[in-house]
Amino acid sequence: MLIIVTYDVSTETREGRKRLRRVAKVCEGHGQRVQKSVFECKVNLMQFEELERRLLAEIDEKEDSLRLYRLKEPFELHVKEYGNFKAVDFEGPLVI
Amino acid sequence: MLIIVTYDVSTETREGRKRLRRVAKVCEGHGQRVQKSVFECKVNLMQFEELERRLLAEIDEKEDSLRLYRLKEPFELHVKEYGNFKAVDFEGPLVI
Repeated sequence: MLIIVTYDVSTETREGRKRLRRVAKVCEGHGQRVQKSVFECKVNLMQFEELERRLLAEIDEKEDSLRLYRLKEPFELHVKEYGNFKAVDFEGPLVI
Repeated sequence: MLIIVTYDVSTETREGRKRLRRVAKVCEGHGQRVQKSVFECKVNLMQFEELERRLLAEIDEKEDSLRLYRLKEPFELHVKEYGNFKAVDFEGPLVI
């Protein structure tokens, strides 16, 4: 199944940016980052439970918002993407 | 059906913030904003096509990323939310 993970945290603080990096790292073990705070993770039920458990260990429930959505299948038909998507390293330094 | 709209734009520029406000306004006509750049929209097929058409009219495809996801139904069972969600006016002034 495809799970969309969306994560809202203030990246104005050092701690917030750190949590976002850690959430991204957990998700990238199961899929890919498609926007700054949106991740697409392909998992089975067991992996989903593991993903959820690991995400909950990283976030600050008082400060952040985490949402997990399960897509309609076949999910290839139920995702539409527009605009300027590049699978970039959102955390890395900008190299021109 | 429930459509998740995720939108990535640099809000460091005035134009980016303006586009995000306009995207939010389009989505809020069909649902609600749940994170800074994530919207949940309940629509039928005709409304979905209208929503997509209106969103594409607002975004800058060179600068922004827009993704539309259709959730598995019954969607109440396929959304999990954690943390600090408040249905706030993300654009309004902060009043204490």
